[in-house]
Amino acid sequence: MEQFRFERGVGFAQRLDDEDCLAPFRKAFLIREPRLIYLDGNSLGRLPLQTLDRLRQAAKEQWGGDLIRGWNGGWYEAPVRVGDKIGKLLGAGPGQVVVSDSTSVNLFKLTMAALAMRPGRSRIISDDLNFPSDLYVIQGCIKLMGDSHRLHLAHSSDGIAPTQQALFDAMDEHTALVTLSHVTFKSGFLYDVPSVTERAHKVGALVLWDLSHSAGAVPLALEPWGVDLAIGCTYKYLNGGPGAPAFLYVHRNLQGELRSPIWGWFGHQSPFVFDLKYRPAPGVARFLVGTPPILSLLAIEGGLDLLLEAGIERIRSKSVQLTSYLIYLVDTVLMPFGFMLGSPRDETRRGSHVSIRHPDGYRINRALIEEMDVLPDFREPDNIRFGLSPLYTSFADVWGAVDRIRIVMEEGRYRRYSEQRLPVT
Amino acid sequence: MEQFRFERGVGFAQRLDDEDCLAPFRKAFLIREPRLIYLDGNSLGRLPLQTLDRLRQAAKEQWGGDLIRGWNGGWYEAPVRVGDKIGKLLGAGPGQVVVSDSTSVNLFKLTMAALAMRPGRSRIISDDLNFPSDLYVIQGCIKLMGDSHRLHLAHSSDGIAPTQQALFDAMDEHTALVTLSHVTFKSGFLYDVPSVTERAHKVGALVLWDLSHSAGAVPLALEPWGVDLAIGCTYKYLNGGPGAPAFLYVHRNLQGELRSPIWGWFGHQSPFVFDLKYRPAPGVARFLVGTPPILSLLAIEGGLDLLLEAGIERIRSKSVQLTSYLIYLVDTVLMPFGFMLGSPRDETRRGSHVSIRHPDGYRINRALIEEMDVLPDFREPDNIRFGLSPLYTSFADVWGAVDRIRIVMEEGRYRRYSEQRLPVT
Repeated sequence: MEQFRFERGVGFAQRLDDEDCLAPFRKAFLIREPRLIYLDGNSLGRLPLQTLDRLRQAAKEQWGGDLIRGWNGGWYEAPVRVGDKIGKLLGAGPGQVVVSDSTSVNLFKLTMAALAMRPGRSRIISDDLNFPSDLYVIQGCIKLMGDSHRLHLAHSSDGIAPTQQALFDAMDEHTALVTLSHVTFKSGFLYDVPSVTERAHKVGALVLWDLSHSAGAVPLALEPWGVDLAIGCTYKYLNGGPGAPAFLYVHRNLQGELRSPIWGWFGHQSPFVFDLKYRPAPGVARFLVGTPPILSLLAIEGGLDLLLEAGIERIRSKSVQLTSYLIYLVDTVLMPFGFMLGSPRDETRRGSHVSIRHPDGYRINRALIEEMDVLPDFREPDNIRFGLSPLYTSFADVWGAVDRIRIVMEEGRYRRYSEQRLPVT
Repeated sequence: MEQFRFERGVGFAQRLDDEDCLAPFRKAFLIREPRLIYLDGNSLGRLPLQTLDRLRQAAKEQWGGDLIRGWNGGWYEAPVRVGDKIGKLLGAGPGQVVVSDSTSVNLFKLTMAALAMRPGRSRIISDDLNFPSDLYVIQGCIKLMGDSHRLHLAHSSDGIAPTQQALFDAMDEHTALVTLSHVTFKSGFLYDVPSVTERAHKVGALVLWDLSHSAGAVPLALEPWGVDLAIGCTYKYLNGGPGAPAFLYVHRNLQGELRSPIWGWFGHQSPFVFDLKYRPAPGVARFLVGTPPILSLLAIEGGLDLLLEAGIERIRSKSVQLTSYLIYLVDTVLMPFGFMLGSPRDETRRGSHVSIRHPDGYRINRALIEEMDVLPDFREPDNIRFGLSPLYTSFADVWGAVDRIRIVMEEGRYRRYSEQRLPVT
């Protein structure tokens, strides 16, 4: 954080925006409410304007006009074509990433495949900072394997960063798989992929990274790092649209050996021969299953093209500046109101979102949403989470959000809201 | 077929169209090429015009404008809401159908769940007329269960209709699951669901129907018939769009007991509590897995609303008339050229598509597509398949298709094409 010198005030924020080489990308996204400060791009990225045109073309020209011929006009190859584009952001050469299913289904497929590749090893390692949704899938895999495996969760003492020693100590010759979120969903802790991967390989385990909170925000080099497996969603920093289909990555060295537990016709060697016997496709395509949701899939490309144009290094550079600036403002403006930082201070260990914690966090978050035109999100028990998406989040957004939180606290606006949780947040 | 009196000639076809109470629905679909005779609605249904508006609203207003708030504005409930609408077409009351994943992933989930409910029974029964894609999934399930099960395929002697006795004889006390396509993809044979279901239940087996080729074309009464499980796609007669997410049905009596093998957060009792332990949702929602592809999912509703407005009984009535008319024309116009009917003559045992067989079928199909503005599709080894979708297929389409086939045959136009299969058809 030493390299940045920040100041308070909207003027300084505007100066940072003036100097920001990525600032022009904001115009590439739909902004319906200019006053709204949207800090939930790590849950659902904004709509790229060009995606509207692509979607209309996919629906009206291709589906409506080309009809079944659309499959010969680019649909059939889309899972691989879009996957290869995502691969560029992940540091994986062509033929190692495909778009398929949801993140959870992909985690299921790769976990089952990994466990089958490590017979006789009964331990799966993760941590208690991982997505609960990922832990559910793993629990289901264990149930399906007849409870022959055990999930070991490395414990984080502060809820922010894992205890790396505990994680490393847990890896032993019984370990089949180590699966973690590259960036943890609550605190934004960023794992050092190469060192964890190296340690797992040393004991003969496979590694599977969930990149949902890092793809499109943090540079990766999956292939040179020798990462075995990865999954991730496309609707956060990739701006692919609500529930857009997910991706999965399998290192090319493993592709011959690894088999999907779900034998789908899109993963067949010759899908259109209608052979009664399943034969897996060569390469990562064997992990495709059924017919992909084309409209949602093609909608991913608009955002991807913007990210590739901006370049992941420039994106990361702005991301670090944004999160550092937010932390500076939390320290200097919000600490007096009882906030605590819920994210790592070390920028090299931090993704692109920052959590701040407060005993009244839930009510403060509601006041921000309902009165202040700020959209962060809330994660139990006390985290207000700010996702900073470098292609459209401005420094003025960050300043504005902190300033509006100050108003909420000074005026006690959060007190009119109940602690009672709404059914869906 | 006795109730119909057909004649040859375009005038007669036009008279049938004039008398068709569903004819006005054709205007509800995008028709870019008026000369094109589209007979592949059983592979990819046409685009309903209102779907374009809904898609634009979902993308621009909801994703682009409402952003993350879209989840509270109808997205979250969409898998259940759209599922209930599909349920109306299937004769299943609310709370038994959800939209989720692909047909293959749904088949995987329900097959694994069914096998777990019938421990000690090692036989799975299907037939050799079923989708190869379904058989791949079953083969994968068996592999995953450690080859403890066997797939028995009832054999069809003519490739058109199953030998029901062989199917019934195969069902015994070792049978865990009977899984069949309600309408077989090649010949269009229509199973009698109640009698097969009753027979399977008599030996204590569960039944799982693939409704991909019947949903939206053939009336069903899943709930009163006591059908245990069903799956199906939404992009054929439901006109939901390319690769639109699929549906699954679980009879309400089984929902408490049946567990998905993939424990996803959308199937969790309280997805937003972020509890580290998985607890299945009550009801069919436990079979949801990950975040659904919202754009593709919402695109389904336009077509569904049209089908519900038309009414499945009227749709079936026109479908039977269309297929009977096509068979009449095949008999009277095309038989001299060496065509054979590849579908049942008995209309009560026939879905909404008709296959005709010819030794030069592949080349004839290519000539129809490339020169004659007719789009059927081809299924190995010799089937040209005509899908008749009552909401937009006209009797004039049927007459036109047969007349153009006659031209192809009389002029020998198919001879300029190779028998060599194109990579994707």
